[in-house]
Amino acid sequence: MNPRVHDISASLIRAMHAKKRPASIDLGLGEPSLSPNLAHFEAAMRQVAERGVKYTPNAGDPALREAIARHYGYPAMDRMENVCITVGSQEAMFVAIKTLLDPARDELLIVEPAFPSYAKMAALEGIAVRSVAMSDADGFAFEAARIAAALGERTRAIVLCSPCNPTARVISADAVDRLAQALERRGGEPVWVIHDEIYREQTFVDDAGYFAKRYPHTIVTNSLSKSNALTGLRLGWILAPSDFVAAAIKVHAWVNSCTDTFAQYVARHVFDAPGALREHADWYREQRGKLLAALKESGLPFVAPEGAFYACVRLPENSSSIEAADELIERCDVVTIPGVAFGASMEGWLRLTWVGSPDQVRDGIQRIAEYCATLPV
Amino acid sequence: MNPRVHDISASLIRAMHAKKRPASIDLGLGEPSLSPNLAHFEAAMRQVAERGVKYTPNAGDPALREAIARHYGYPAMDRMENVCITVGSQEAMFVAIKTLLDPARDELLIVEPAFPSYAKMAALEGIAVRSVAMSDADGFAFEAARIAAALGERTRAIVLCSPCNPTARVISADAVDRLAQALERRGGEPVWVIHDEIYREQTFVDDAGYFAKRYPHTIVTNSLSKSNALTGLRLGWILAPSDFVAAAIKVHAWVNSCTDTFAQYVARHVFDAPGALREHADWYREQRGKLLAALKESGLPFVAPEGAFYACVRLPENSSSIEAADELIERCDVVTIPGVAFGASMEGWLRLTWVGSPDQVRDGIQRIAEYCATLPV
Repeated sequence: MNPRVHDISASLIRAMHAKKRPASIDLGLGEPSLSPNLAHFEAAMRQVAERGVKYTPNAGDPALREAIARHYGYPAMDRMENVCITVGSQEAMFVAIKTLLDPARDELLIVEPAFPSYAKMAALEGIAVRSVAMSDADGFAFEAARIAAALGERTRAIVLCSPCNPTARVISADAVDRLAQALERRGGEPVWVIHDEIYREQTFVDDAGYFAKRYPHTIVTNSLSKSNALTGLRLGWILAPSDFVAAAIKVHAWVNSCTDTFAQYVARHVFDAPGALREHADWYREQRGKLLAALKESGLPFVAPEGAFYACVRLPENSSSIEAADELIERCDVVTIPGVAFGASMEGWLRLTWVGSPDQVRDGIQRIAEYCATLPV
Repeated sequence: MNPRVHDISASLIRAMHAKKRPASIDLGLGEPSLSPNLAHFEAAMRQVAERGVKYTPNAGDPALREAIARHYGYPAMDRMENVCITVGSQEAMFVAIKTLLDPARDELLIVEPAFPSYAKMAALEGIAVRSVAMSDADGFAFEAARIAAALGERTRAIVLCSPCNPTARVISADAVDRLAQALERRGGEPVWVIHDEIYREQTFVDDAGYFAKRYPHTIVTNSLSKSNALTGLRLGWILAPSDFVAAAIKVHAWVNSCTDTFAQYVARHVFDAPGALREHADWYREQRGKLLAALKESGLPFVAPEGAFYACVRLPENSSSIEAADELIERCDVVTIPGVAFGASMEGWLRLTWVGSPDQVRDGIQRIAEYCATLPV
């Protein structure tokens, strides 16, 4: 078999989930607990009855591509030719990395702490990776200078997720501008930025930065998974300059042929219904308020979430995050994700999700605080 | 960008489709013209209302995996662990090739005439390919000895599609047995067979062979696309020994995370409803009868379809299949696919699809016969 497949390690996040018990308070989830709006599915059903579920073109339904491009309206990325519909943002990222980077010469720079799949996709493709860690002393805020300083000679792309899984930080427009300036000053072949925008509709700050608004060599990946509680629908997209999208469509076509037509019917309804992309936004804002109250009450050190639906809490000095997460499941029946799953820079931290009922989230946080109080300082 | 993406040529099949006019008789289609059974979608909608559309495990819904394994009941492949749910059979094939073959040393043997995507997937992965052509004098019948003789030292897998797109031939149980014997006699590391069974429910002969019944190193790919007119649903699977499936699940997870949960709800209903997988089988059998009558009436030389929904007709000696297909669209308003799209061995032939209305199919065939009569012999 392909040795690259064999060599890549199993998921630490999945290993934690596997330990969950029926009564556990689950603060480890990576998906919304809300239910999706059935109106989108009913609209899709009417399409099925009328037109079946035939193949769409490889790149997706032209009207959906157009609607997505127009909705975001990024400069020079606002036409159908700038969009490829993908199987969730996971395939969007896989196709982006595979299309962009030449394993024989290019290197991918990952801004950490980061969701582990970027590094695993690169490993599967034989692409060299370097990483740059944001500072935990600064609550993992995105720092343009730190990222720019980490660029190597072979770095052809930077990947970052903002709003960020796991840190819940959001890159500011100012930091985007400064990083873009640094990349422009560099000269030579452009360094691309792959901006994972999957938590875009869970943004709680006013100065959020978007590379696609500022830097022409940007590839955006996104999906309906988190905005509309449609994780299982696997409906995502790449939004990028049209030359890049044309190449990405080839890769997407050989991997998956095209994305589920039913899911595209659902997405058409979401993008055609004004405000539908933000139909859950108020709930998250309210939920975040309750989370902040619970965190303050607990006394745990934490980074206040600027976006996404995670929160990072710091364990007492010298704690192992894996050991703590294991003990929290075994002794306290709370599932969390050890920080080290997202890079060495997040050792000593836990990632919590706050999409459950506020009482459960509060109870879980309280148990974590009680557990931490038992640890030697 | 990745030079492998750049180097792979565009699809000749898509180029033909692009020339289609609104009034054209379309004998080039690769998908059923039937409508899907809405009952499967209504069942899926009830699941959405009850449970949303959350992620399934990477490998798919355990109950669906189990149902598929049990339905086929292949020896030592009849448990959940033998199945990975994929985004159509396209991703099943992509994942199978990527998981199985080491680009540094292995080679894939493609049995031609073949659907062009196998070679393109291999090229994308940097995997060496050799091909073995079945004889047109023999109507492209699958010949075990010819395939076995083509094995090279580095050949690690053979891929074939039976019932075959494009030839509509079906490999016999006897030919499967003889090829399996040849592979077993070879010794050393096993050579795997990837059997693309996507047209399994369109089989019109009684002695169809299935590698999974006879040869332990078999990987089956399949989907609901052709059996249930669900091409756009993108619901397929890999059925293989559990060790292989465990590795394939890793690749599938990094590429797509998991398959659309809604599509899996639909598939659950198909596999739970007795006979649903064959709900269109009678229609195809009847349609085939009408096609054979039309072909005989036309006087065109053809290979009688044993399976799938294609038919190969031979052009007059020394004709170029691309030229003929182009002229058929331009002069006669009939879309066909030039044989050379499926390998040099099919030059001088056209592939027709017979899923349209019988009158249209008959009319299209008549136009082809009239066109051929104008060519020099």
